[in-house]
Amino acid sequence: MHLTTICRIIGMLLMIFSLTMALPAALAAIYQDGALGAFSYAFGLTFLSGLSLWALSRGKQPDLGIRDGFLVVALFWTVLGLFGALPFYLADNPGLSVSAAVFESVSGLTTTGATVITGIDDLPISILFYRQFLQWLGGIGIIVIAVAILPILGIGGMQLYRAETPGPVKDNKLTPRITGTAKALFFMYVAMTLACTLAYWAAGMSFFDAICHSFSTVAIGGFSTHDASMGYFDSPLILLICTVFMLIAGMSFAIHYHVWRSGRVRLYMQDSETKFYLGVIATATLSVCGYLIFSGEQTPLDGIINGLFHTVSIATTAGFGADDFAAWPSFLPVGLLLLSFIGGCAGSTGGGMKAVRVMLVAKQGIRELKQLIHPSAVIPLKIGSHRVEAKVVSAVWSFFGVYLISFLAITLAMMACGLDFLSAFSATAASINNMGPGLGEVAANYSTVSHTGKWILCYAMLLGRLEIFTLLVILLPAFWRR
Amino acid sequence: MHLTTICRIIGMLLMIFSLTMALPAALAAIYQDGALGAFSYAFGLTFLSGLSLWALSRGKQPDLGIRDGFLVVALFWTVLGLFGALPFYLADNPGLSVSAAVFESVSGLTTTGATVITGIDDLPISILFYRQFLQWLGGIGIIVIAVAILPILGIGGMQLYRAETPGPVKDNKLTPRITGTAKALFFMYVAMTLACTLAYWAAGMSFFDAICHSFSTVAIGGFSTHDASMGYFDSPLILLICTVFMLIAGMSFAIHYHVWRSGRVRLYMQDSETKFYLGVIATATLSVCGYLIFSGEQTPLDGIINGLFHTVSIATTAGFGADDFAAWPSFLPVGLLLLSFIGGCAGSTGGGMKAVRVMLVAKQGIRELKQLIHPSAVIPLKIGSHRVEAKVVSAVWSFFGVYLISFLAITLAMMACGLDFLSAFSATAASINNMGPGLGEVAANYSTVSHTGKWILCYAMLLGRLEIFTLLVILLPAFWRR
Ligand SMILES: [K+]
Ligand SMILES: [K+]
Repeated sequence: MHLTTICRIIGMLLMIFSLTMALPAALAAIYQDGALGAFSYAFGLTFLSGLSLWALSRGKQPDLGIRDGFLVVALFWTVLGLFGALPFYLADNPGLSVSAAVFESVSGLTTTGATVITGIDDLPISILFYRQFLQWLGGIGIIVIAVAILPILGIGGMQLYRAETPGPVKDNKLTPRITGTAKALFFMYVAMTLACTLAYWAAGMSFFDAICHSFSTVAIGGFSTHDASMGYFDSPLILLICTVFMLIAGMSFAIHYHVWRSGRVRLYMQDSETKFYLGVIATATLSVCGYLIFSGEQTPLDGIINGLFHTVSIATTAGFGADDFAAWPSFLPVGLLLLSFIGGCAGSTGGGMKAVRVMLVAKQGIRELKQLIHPSAVIPLKIGSHRVEAKVVSAVWSFFGVYLISFLAITLAMMACGLDFLSAFSATAASINNMGPGLGEVAANYSTVSHTGKWILCYAMLLGRLEIFTLLVILLPAFWRR
Repeated sequence: MHLTTICRIIGMLLMIFSLTMALPAALAAIYQDGALGAFSYAFGLTFLSGLSLWALSRGKQPDLGIRDGFLVVALFWTVLGLFGALPFYLADNPGLSVSAAVFESVSGLTTTGATVITGIDDLPISILFYRQFLQWLGGIGIIVIAVAILPILGIGGMQLYRAETPGPVKDNKLTPRITGTAKALFFMYVAMTLACTLAYWAAGMSFFDAICHSFSTVAIGGFSTHDASMGYFDSPLILLICTVFMLIAGMSFAIHYHVWRSGRVRLYMQDSETKFYLGVIATATLSVCGYLIFSGEQTPLDGIINGLFHTVSIATTAGFGADDFAAWPSFLPVGLLLLSFIGGCAGSTGGGMKAVRVMLVAKQGIRELKQLIHPSAVIPLKIGSHRVEAKVVSAVWSFFGVYLISFLAITLAMMACGLDFLSAFSATAASINNMGPGLGEVAANYSTVSHTGKWILCYAMLLGRLEIFTLLVILLPAFWRR
């Protein structure tokens, strides 16, 4: 373990992160919305903490190893999540409690998009911007970590991902990957955000709303500047734009990168994860729209728009709302909630278990049935033309098992905190899948959840965002042994 | 496929099965309880159907292959389940609808123990006896199939089971296994039933109740002759006797067989599945009792008795009730419901996914975490001293995946039938795990579930009892190809 180097990295990250508070501070100063003090104070504290960490851990900087990678990734969201809570705690409006402020901050950074705030429309403009900006920052963090770092750590079968995609970088050291790849990913992310902003603006959003919602769209975050979320704009065109960008942001940025470098758009359709991801969403959309229309719940046009938008919003784990989705016949919201367990592609800003893992598991299930009929046949497991190693398959299965057990344990804990079954189940699913809104008591927001409950859900959001194993592995004694 | 042989086997099974209706018919005649006509008619119809099938498919009888094994196992419960419904449908009391009668019959035979009947205490004595007898018969069927047939079919990693236990029979043909092993298993089963009957009787049950409840106890069935289930007797001693026999019946009958043959009782403690099974139940019992007592919900003595009894009853998937369990703080019933997914040991009369599979998955999860820290280490996966083949592990994982997907799909279907989330979730879990009682709307009985819902739950009970794959594999077109 190279703890000094890790401290230095975290210090640097904190200094960069403090800039996210400088921008809202400027907004607060311009619009005199009353949050200037909170942001200035939070900015100072974060920057100085970062500077101290960075300055105190000078010296020779060795290359980082695998274990250091786990620690950096785990600390990235926990430390930033805590410091990011400062403005929510310090500002008079919303003036959250400690647990609520950390919940809002972690929910933002992990791009979960669950909120504890009621009366979002009345928040100071700087706080509104800050919430969206947290998601945007979390989004790029996720992509860089997922594309550049996780494959090296080999979490839950993500070697698979590295093996299949002729990805950006292939060597095994952390440092060159992060610097080299991160720039390209960042560039694409910014370009996508700009395109999304322009589209929203052209469709009728105010410029401020367009920027804010493009932040939370490309990050598959789901925060909005309005209590009514996307429903506020009452515009099918905006819902469609949002749908398109959610779908794009839910694809692997490694593929985007590859298409961008080679110019070959057909790479999307050659990638089996992308095909699976789009196939599942298309099937779900057809079922949901079909039910809404043929049951007479909605008019055909409304059914198509609402069905498409909500299916994509929940399945990609964005979690934007428009229609009163929680009031649909209950098996639709619950069914979509289950879809969020699949989530986006690996290397996207989406949450969930990731399409590639679910695809692998589905293929393995079918393979096993065939094997039962032909016990002596040798049936290889393939993704595209690439044969999947047994080691990778077992890593993916373990990921599933641990994900499921974590999910169930947290659901029970939330019930012990006083939530009913549907609320506990959906709150946990929405948190661990980094999706956002739940059902039942937590359909609109999480303000009624107890302090303990909020901390548990924070843990769930981090667990999901850190691909479970990152957070679990550092809890093992063996991890800390020399 | 040897369809004539299969028809002959099913015909023979039906003729044997018709005897389960002859005994209640005799009871009905003696006690003049009004169900004589129903049982006579049902007996005649079942026996003649069996005889016709048997007689029509004469001729050369070749050895059966793997695929025939799947069909026989799948037909065993479906055909017997349908014919077994006749008395429930024909008798004036309970006079069930077709769907309700089939539900009650399938629930009995699969040893699920979910009921659609209200007013059980008022049923004719012959019907009461018949319900319990169905469970007892289902129980021995399960054991013979699980110990003698499933390992050959290699369903969901059950080769594992064969590999570890120096089990009764090891060759690969069906016929000698069934005849040879079945006798020994049957003998042990009868002995256990007698012991249980005597214990109940000595503890104060009427002789009739003692027989009836010993039937449903050794079968881990959960049917009772009283609406209040075990609570009717209001006797801690009876609850303890029931607990002990549920625990024994939840262990593998292959181990029982082995202990019986060798006389070495310490074999139980050398078997890793048995240790895991008892360890999980002990941990859960301590947690439940601890919570009930320290939260002040119950007095210490009540807390210990009720906590122990209900934990064992749900964890082994027996499903007997005593206290008003569904009214406990909701995370306890839901937590125990999740335990029923583990269920009994492979080769027991218990349901669920079976302890050995869950143990394997838990070990694999821990192994994977260790592998993350030491990426290049070779860490073998062992059960006891036996190293588990990768093929077996992947079969177990697939079993889990398919089990989970089936569970979720059926839960959604039950919600579409009008059940709320908790009721749908618990009804599906209780059915697929062959456990019995649910929570919410289906806590007491399943009478309010729609016809479609009852059929779906019948399917779930069969799916669970047939280890999922048996029922799924015969739906594959490849299964029917030459
Ligand atoms: K989200
Ligand atoms: K049962």
